[in-house]
Parts: sequence; C-alpha cells; structure tokens
Amino acid sequence: MARIVMKFGGTSMAGTERIRRVAGIVRRQQAAGHSVAVVVSAMAGETDRLVNFCREANPLFDPAEYDVVVASGEQVTSGLLALTLQSLGCKARSWLGWQMPISTIEAHAKARVANIDAAELIASMDAGEIAVIPGFQGVSDSGRITTLGRGGSDTSAVAVAAAIGADRCDIYTDVDGVYTTDPRIVAKARKLKAVTYEEMLELASVGAKVLQTRSVGLAMKSGVRVQVLSSFIDDDATPADDLPGTMIVSEAEMEQLLENGEMERQHVTGIAHDKNEAKIILTRVPDKPGAVAHIFEPLAAASINVDMIIQNVGRDKGETDVTFTVPQTDLARAQALLEDQRGTIGFNRIITDSKIAKISVVGVGMKSHAGVASTMFRALADRGINIQAITTSEIKVSVMIDEDETELAVRVLHTAYGLDAPDIVGDEAA
Amino acid sequence: MARIVMKFGGTSMAGTERIRRVAGIVRRQQAAGHSVAVVVSAMAGETDRLVNFCREANPLFDPAEYDVVVASGEQVTSGLLALTLQSLGCKARSWLGWQMPISTIEAHAKARVANIDAAELIASMDAGEIAVIPGFQGVSDSGRITTLGRGGSDTSAVAVAAAIGADRCDIYTDVDGVYTTDPRIVAKARKLKAVTYEEMLELASVGAKVLQTRSVGLAMKSGVRVQVLSSFIDDDATPADDLPGTMIVSEAEMEQLLENGEMERQHVTGIAHDKNEAKIILTRVPDKPGAVAHIFEPLAAASINVDMIIQNVGRDKGETDVTFTVPQTDLARAQALLEDQRGTIGFNRIITDSKIAKISVVGVGMKSHAGVASTMFRALADRGINIQAITTSEIKVSVMIDEDETELAVRVLHTAYGLDAPDIVGDEAA
Repeated sequence: MARIVMKFGGTSMAGTERIRRVAGIVRRQQAAGHSVAVVVSAMAGETDRLVNFCREANPLFDPAEYDVVVASGEQVTSGLLALTLQSLGCKARSWLGWQMPISTIEAHAKARVANIDAAELIASMDAGEIAVIPGFQGVSDSGRITTLGRGGSDTSAVAVAAAIGADRCDIYTDVDGVYTTDPRIVAKARKLKAVTYEEMLELASVGAKVLQTRSVGLAMKSGVRVQVLSSFIDDDATPADDLPGTMIVSEAEMEQLLENGEMERQHVTGIAHDKNEAKIILTRVPDKPGAVAHIFEPLAAASINVDMIIQNVGRDKGETDVTFTVPQTDLARAQALLEDQRGTIGFNRIITDSKIAKISVVGVGMKSHAGVASTMFRALADRGINIQAITTSEIKVSVMIDEDETELAVRVLHTAYGLDAPDIVGDEAA
Repeated sequence: MARIVMKFGGTSMAGTERIRRVAGIVRRQQAAGHSVAVVVSAMAGETDRLVNFCREANPLFDPAEYDVVVASGEQVTSGLLALTLQSLGCKARSWLGWQMPISTIEAHAKARVANIDAAELIASMDAGEIAVIPGFQGVSDSGRITTLGRGGSDTSAVAVAAAIGADRCDIYTDVDGVYTTDPRIVAKARKLKAVTYEEMLELASVGAKVLQTRSVGLAMKSGVRVQVLSSFIDDDATPADDLPGTMIVSEAEMEQLLENGEMERQHVTGIAHDKNEAKIILTRVPDKPGAVAHIFEPLAAASINVDMIIQNVGRDKGETDVTFTVPQTDLARAQALLEDQRGTIGFNRIITDSKIAKISVVGVGMKSHAGVASTMFRALADRGINIQAITTSEIKVSVMIDEDETELAVRVLHTAYGLDAPDIVGDEAA
C-alpha cells in the first residue's frame, strides 16, 4: 500500500460538478489500494473575489485579517470534496490548517511551512479515511490563520507529502505533464516522462508555468517525488497506477531511469520561452566601483526582480552601458525609481524595450556535454535571429531576442537538439 | 466604561460598502468610551449559496463537513469588518470560533454553546482592541467546526455577552425595535421602549420575527440585557448612548422602569399575528383513553410542531372531533402520516384549512389583571369576527380566525387595548 498525495487546482474544483469528477479520480486511487490525502485549491475565481473584498475594505490591509478572509475559499472546497467523496461511498474528512496542524512562520500572506504534525492524519489515512486538506493555509504559533501566498496549494501538497512520507505527490492541473516545449508553438513537442527538480525549476521560472516554483524547491529539499498530470483525463480509462503524467525526480532517480532505458539520454531536456520581461539599458554609467550597486539596490528594495544583467564597455573610456531585464509589470515603477536615482547613478539615458523574449535551453545533460551553447548560437544565427544578451547556468543557456522571433527560435532549437517527436510514417489502424 | 456586544445581521454585512457603515456605528460606540465586541453574520445570501453547494455535493450531507463549508461565510465577514475598522483607525482583530474558543456540544449543524473561554478576549477588549467574532460558529471538544443552526448569530451574540459580562447586547437588524404590532398593518403601532424576555418569546414565536427565539431564551437564562435596534440609523445623528431601540429585560428591571415612570403600565404589551399555520380537523375520533396519543405521537416523531389543540365533543356519544394546527409547510406530510394511522386512530374524515390566522395578545400585565381575554372576545365579536379556537398562557391569549380577517382583527385589538399612538393634533414645526 502506497501513500499518495493528490493536489487539484482551482479549475478542477470550480463547482460541484467538477468536484464530483475529482472525487471519482480520488476514489480510483483508493480503490487501487492506496492510502490517499487530497490537497485542494479554492474554486477558480474565488480567491480573486476574496482578495478584492479585502482591498475594498482596506487598501493597506492587515495581512493577518487578509489571511482570515482568503483562507475561506479552500475551507469551502475541502468540505465539499469530503462530502462528495462520502456520497460516492468513501470515508473522508477535511483537515483544516489549524486542525492538523500545519504550523507556519508568523509571516502572514506569505508564510512558509515550519512543521506539520501528521500523526493523527496518518492514523486516519491508514484506517482507510481519505484526508481532504485545504491548500494555501496554515496556522501560526500564536494560533492565527496564515496563508502561503498565491499558488501556495502546490507547496501545501508537497509539504504534506514530505510530512507523511508519501510515495508520490500527484499535482493534477489543466495540462497533462511537462513538455519539451510549449505544444502550442511546436506541434511535435513531446511530453517528458521525467525531469529532474533542477530542470523543472529552470523550466518553471522561464515560462513553463505548471507548478509553483517554491513547491519544486521544497520537493527537491525533501526528496518528494512529484508527478504532474491532467485532471481532465477520463477517470475510468486508464488503470490507477499508469497515470500518464511527468515525474519530477532527483538526479539519482533520473540516472536510474536512464540506465534502465526508461528515458532516452538527451543533452537538452526542454526549450522554454518567456515574453513577460522588459529590457532596460542605462547608457554611459561611470565605470567605477559601486556604480552597479547604485542601480540595483533601489530596485531590490522595491522588490523588483532583476533577471539578466549585461555590462557592455562603452565607446568612451571610464563609461559603460548596463543592460538588464525586469518583469514588464514592474517596468514603469523601475523606470521611475531609476530616474529618481539619476544623480547618484550618473547615467546618460534610459532606453527601454518591452518587445523582447528570453529563450532558454535546459537540461542536466549539458553538465557533462560541451557544445550545447554553441549549437544554440549556430542554429539561431543560421535563421538570422539576433542575440541581444546571453546568460548561462550549469543546466541552462538563455538568450534574449526580439519578441517577434520567439516562436521561430523555439521551433529552430527544438529541432536542433533533436527533441521533435518522430513523424508518423504509416497508419497502423485498419 | 461599559462592555458592549453589538451584533449585525446579513443585510447589514452585504458587501464592503455596508460593512463600512457598520464599522462607523461600531467606532462610535468605542469613541463613547465603551469596550466593544462585534458579532457578525455572513453576507446576505452567502449562507444559502454555501448550503446549496453542500446539497449538490451530497444530498444526505455529513453535518460535520457541512459545518466546515457554511461557517466560512462568517469567517469572511469577520475578517473584512476587522480590516474596515482598522482602515478607520481602530485597533481590531477577528476571533474565530476555534480561536477563542466558543466550545459547543458535538451536535453538528445544530450545536449549542457549552462554554466560552473569554479571558483572552476580555484582555484584548480592555486594551482597546475591538473584537470581531463570526456568529453561528463554534468548535466541538474533538476540535471540529460546529454551527448553531440558521439564525444562530443572535445566539452567538448573547452567549458572548454572557461570557464577558456585557452591560448590553445590541442586536442591529433591519427593523428599529419591537413594536406593539406590525407597523405595516397598524400605522399607529408604537415602538416599545422595553419588553420582558417572556413577552419577547411570545411575540417572536407568534410572528414578530425580530430575534431568534433561542437567543431570547438564552438571554433570559443568563440575564443578558438585549437591545434590538436598526443598523440603518444615521450613525452620526444620535449620541452613542441614546440608541432608540427596544430593550429586552427581566421582569424585575421592567418593574423598575414602570416605577420610575419610564414605561407606561399596560395590561397588553403587543398584538402578534401568524399566518403560517394550517388547521387540521379529524372528525368522529373515538372518545376513549389513548385516542389523542395515537394522533400526536406520529406527528412528534416526524418533528412536526403541533400548536393549538382543541377537542370538541361531537354529536354522537363516544365520539369527538379533534382540531389542531401545524405549520403550513408540514401540512401535506402531516396529512399523509395521519392517513397512514387511520386504522389505529379510527377517525372518520380529515378536514384541512390553510386559510387561518392566529392572533395573540401578549403582556406580563395580564398576570395581575383579569378581563384581558373577555376584552378580546368582545372586540372581535363586535366586528363580526368569528373565533374558531382559543388558547391561553400566563401572559398570552391566542385565537384562531379566518386568514382574511387578520389585519382587521389586529387593528381592532390594537385599539381595544389602548395601544394606538396618539393622533398628532398640531404641527409643532414652523
């Protein structure tokens, strides 16, 4: 008997009819002999509705009371799923954050899980009762409701999986797994049977928005095996233990899969793209110690996330151009902050450009294989795509290009790294 | 410094704009130097929405999970009111049922308050923080959410008032107090400055639906002084300590008010009417021991509330007609049950009539004054209103009449007992 955590997002929980479908999927796992805990999000749109109430009540809202209000959405869906499971003949009960309890740090609206006391939960699960747990919520040491920040239900699921020593944490979402790239761009994109935590972190943070990044980090730290799969599969069509999602695993487990021939060894696992960044160029910044700090300190203080940073030595000696990217939604704020600091920084002009994209090739395979970056540059150059900036990490190479060339670049790279699914050459059906 | 509990219903809490109005009323009480706790209902319509979800999820719902779902409505409004009070510069925090805690018996969906541990609450209030408490909810000994049944927020307010030794429990509602009768029927109805608990129980149970009956019983038992007043008063117009509601008090306090001349001594305090009952006549029931038990036992077992009961000796010796009333909503069910028992009871015919009304005159004054009933019969007879049945209690006389004569009867009795407000004979304004 395996212990399994299943997590369902807001789209899957939107209304009693969809909750009934979720209950069917959950029951199937239990019928397969597993001991099951389910973590649920609020109904799609509900958290936004509650957040808006808070904003209307008090634009500078007290995060402790905000948490009281917004945590209610998951409380409702956890009760409703327990009721629906009961109507299907399952034993089930809800466990609110303060009941288990899921203890978090005191940071309201952006808490982190500190500890989960799962003894009672495990006893209940082992007795055949399905545990239904509202995601996103916990309780602070002072006994008040906390929430983990938007998208926090993925993190709740992984934290519960770690606490109960789950064999697997299945994240049901509206895609059916992690692909080599966005299938809307590349028809021949292939679903990956497995990716490593590190790859998933890179893929998630550059645009493959399948899982909350923090949950992947927690899974990596706790060694929780995560599976991403679709909640819109036909719940009677596939056997319970052959769910066709993507497993997110450690490098050691990945190596095992490769050795067993269950995965094909590739240098690059996937191609990600991100159109949500904007480029800022500050021209003729004095090329002296501390100059760059003057640029990035105020942005950091304003919680503006700077991604790529490139420093180009300018034509004139003692001056340099500094290029970097920020989220498009923060561009206006960043520009205003930099203008405020014009005297301190000492730049000449601010040039901004929102029409850029970041394309990344990701893969643990590149750790042991040279030439991945040069393949990228050659493939893009062959199609006349100009690279504006480059950054690299151990398992990723990212380039900044013109936004209009995003899809072309993704397709070119997907082919260049041999990721395309094979053509179907014959029709095997009668 | 007085300790005051204020309770606001769903209409007052329907949306952030109305909650802002409530916050203004609350702040005014605090500004008057009082230590304040506020008990809130869910937004109007929200509890119905949540109950419907539960019904859709599982028609035979588990009341423990039902409580998890429906308690969320008050959780939301308590957080929002705390946020709104903060935006007005007040210190405020929410106290959920499990946080205080408000301990109840284990009976989910119809729990009763067993104990309130208010030590922390009192300390917080005495330190100038407004306590915002979701009504309707508590926590069981096993640590699960319970609810007190529909309308339970009134009871929550009275229970909190008892626990903190409040000087007053103000119930803000959409009427501005308790009247001598329904002002929609009698234009000259007068708002009562005070009524006793016993009178309020009779007035509430016969149609003056201002307060949940259970909350009045609890107030009587705990000696909590309750005031009913409107939440739609202009919150800046009247001084905080001169709120123009109706006080619900003990007989001893009422006697004091009468002796001080703050109230006028009356034999009858108010006239209530109730059109929601239906009459059932069973003809030619055998007039022998146990016959009546055969009628009412199956109705009691089906939780059908029987009100007036009259037994008329029939024309034939050894037989009798039995007349009684049940809620109209239970009429069909009662009829079916009685038909099932026809053999056991041995009646001849069932005659039913939904077009009846119960008119009651209520007043503690009638304890020490004879002739109240005969005044009633005479006044009705003078207008040709036929009385179909009569029941009396220590402080109430009720008659059953034709429903079409309801308004006429109420007006006739209101005048007969001298309850009409005096005519305005001159215009004192310029």
